[in-house]
Amino acid sequence: MKPMIAITMGDPAGIGPEIIVKAFSKPLVNRIERAGRFVVVGDRGVLEKTARRIKHAPGLRAVPDPEAVRAAQNVLSVIDLKNVDLRRLAVGRPGAAGGRAAVGAIRTAVELALARRVAAIVTAPISKEGLHAAGYPFPGHTELLAELTGSPAVGMLMAANLPKTIRPRLAPQLRILLATTHVAIRDLPERLTRECVETAIRLAHDAAVRYFGLRRPRLAVAGLNPHAGEAGLFGREEFETIGPAVEQARRDGLPVAGPFPADSLIRRAVEGKYDLVVAMYHDQALIPIKLLGFGRAVNVTVGLPFVRTSPDHGTAYDIAGKGVADPSSLIEAIRLAAALAKKRKIGRAPHPFA
Amino acid sequence: MKPMIAITMGDPAGIGPEIIVKAFSKPLVNRIERAGRFVVVGDRGVLEKTARRIKHAPGLRAVPDPEAVRAAQNVLSVIDLKNVDLRRLAVGRPGAAGGRAAVGAIRTAVELALARRVAAIVTAPISKEGLHAAGYPFPGHTELLAELTGSPAVGMLMAANLPKTIRPRLAPQLRILLATTHVAIRDLPERLTRECVETAIRLAHDAAVRYFGLRRPRLAVAGLNPHAGEAGLFGREEFETIGPAVEQARRDGLPVAGPFPADSLIRRAVEGKYDLVVAMYHDQALIPIKLLGFGRAVNVTVGLPFVRTSPDHGTAYDIAGKGVADPSSLIEAIRLAAALAKKRKIGRAPHPFA
Repeated sequence: MKPMIAITMGDPAGIGPEIIVKAFSKPLVNRIERAGRFVVVGDRGVLEKTARRIKHAPGLRAVPDPEAVRAAQNVLSVIDLKNVDLRRLAVGRPGAAGGRAAVGAIRTAVELALARRVAAIVTAPISKEGLHAAGYPFPGHTELLAELTGSPAVGMLMAANLPKTIRPRLAPQLRILLATTHVAIRDLPERLTRECVETAIRLAHDAAVRYFGLRRPRLAVAGLNPHAGEAGLFGREEFETIGPAVEQARRDGLPVAGPFPADSLIRRAVEGKYDLVVAMYHDQALIPIKLLGFGRAVNVTVGLPFVRTSPDHGTAYDIAGKGVADPSSLIEAIRLAAALAKKRKIGRAPHPFA
Repeated sequence: MKPMIAITMGDPAGIGPEIIVKAFSKPLVNRIERAGRFVVVGDRGVLEKTARRIKHAPGLRAVPDPEAVRAAQNVLSVIDLKNVDLRRLAVGRPGAAGGRAAVGAIRTAVELALARRVAAIVTAPISKEGLHAAGYPFPGHTELLAELTGSPAVGMLMAANLPKTIRPRLAPQLRILLATTHVAIRDLPERLTRECVETAIRLAHDAAVRYFGLRRPRLAVAGLNPHAGEAGLFGREEFETIGPAVEQARRDGLPVAGPFPADSLIRRAVEGKYDLVVAMYHDQALIPIKLLGFGRAVNVTVGLPFVRTSPDHGTAYDIAGKGVADPSSLIEAIRLAAALAKKRKIGRAPHPFA
């Protein structure tokens, strides 16, 4: 049986509903329909309103639970949480109502995944401003999902399939796991502890083996500073935290090298020298991922008891409701979630920190 | 007459001598020989020893000054500073001797450029460790050249020609000017002042107009933090320093936008939406430049009274003396220097801060 995938609707004031409806419209649905079975978790009214303005949109059918989903041409099943008041929703602006509705969908999807009633979750974008307005003090999905599942350590991993046309002999995919995510640069040196880097390396190794099926993955760790500090001339974190974390991981038997200057390391990973890079901070990972992903990069949360993926972009309030949002990255996130859900025994392998 | 270009030999313990000799060997020399006239400033003994191990290397002819250079097939002219003791040089290791020799070549080339006896300088790599060992407290060429020329403000600009094969409708070139260069991440928030960002914007505009010939360039400024701070949630530098600098530049009539999240901004620049990006720190610029430059990116120093370019890589001590160094980026640096030297009235335009 194909894996059942739950797709959370994201912030109703952002582009989430639009990219979901587009992903299931003809002919784009051809790219995903054979990969799994699907149920959207969100507000049916928002999706209906969105679908009216999109060509070849699927019909929407409310279902009480994933077990009630039946395969049908051009029909998208929705677990309708009825948690958005359309008259009061300000499309294109972050707000408490949108934040609350988004969290409601995530909670329901997490419960279904923990009960193994869905094999994976794909999340449409939420906004940190919306989350905060609704009273949830999380910077993003990754941290919220860690909290909801009680996971001791989770990691944000970005994967971008590389176009074959750039150059010969490229890696098939650029994969980067982030040691820190939504942290101000000012706070980085303090937040980037040796423990945090070690955790990231272990999560990266686990992802490489369990998610990407690599038996002896080649992992490499980026430095924090320019030229990885150039022997201590521009920063000492490479000696004091990152280097010792890499050494510890090697003593524990993990095949990891570094820290290396981020600019040349990422280029070498793209050239096929490494399978997975551990980046120290957000932009170190997201700049190359967005550049080479061409709108189709995927975010994978590692360390949860189920598969979770998402597109590489945010709520894009500035274009919400205008019909111009691109569903490509969501489609890739759905495809990857289905592929991973088939590959792993979800929730059965021990957590790397258990 | 073709412009006269001085090429400094760089650290003799690094790959500088090798990539210079290779760039002037057959058939690679075809890529540059018509672009200008050339003189290497450095130690002839080091170049001779290097040339003996490289196929189709040019002959080396000592000249007293640039005026003595004569065009000749397969001959490379050298102003021989006789400042390296080959018996004591440890190839592959930074040291005081290499640092001193490298600075000697730079000093000579700068004097020639200031006297307008050469139209541009291309510098082979030096090492900051070598500079420091030799007693020069500079993190790199850019800062040393600013000091030697008494320039009130200089900027490091990276340019990478984009391969046409990636996607249609790309920009021809990704250009990024750095607001800070060799600064530890820990020190960034303090070093990244409003003045420093304003200076970078002015230098970027000047470079776009004078160097790249754009009459109304579209400039954009990156934020410092993830998501450009996402409205203050992960850092406030976008409100407190970067944003006000952009506003001031706009009031001064400069066509600049931002600050924008670095990851999506750089992607949009590659897609052709902006002509030049102002990055806040080293890796924000160098990660995408190295990735898309494929070993052919060029570093341009803006704000000097002459044209100066260099390759996008360092001394690469780990491969020095092994004959495997790639001269591609140096060749591009030479080509760009020659093109810029033809375009600008060197030293005649007022400095943007004069």
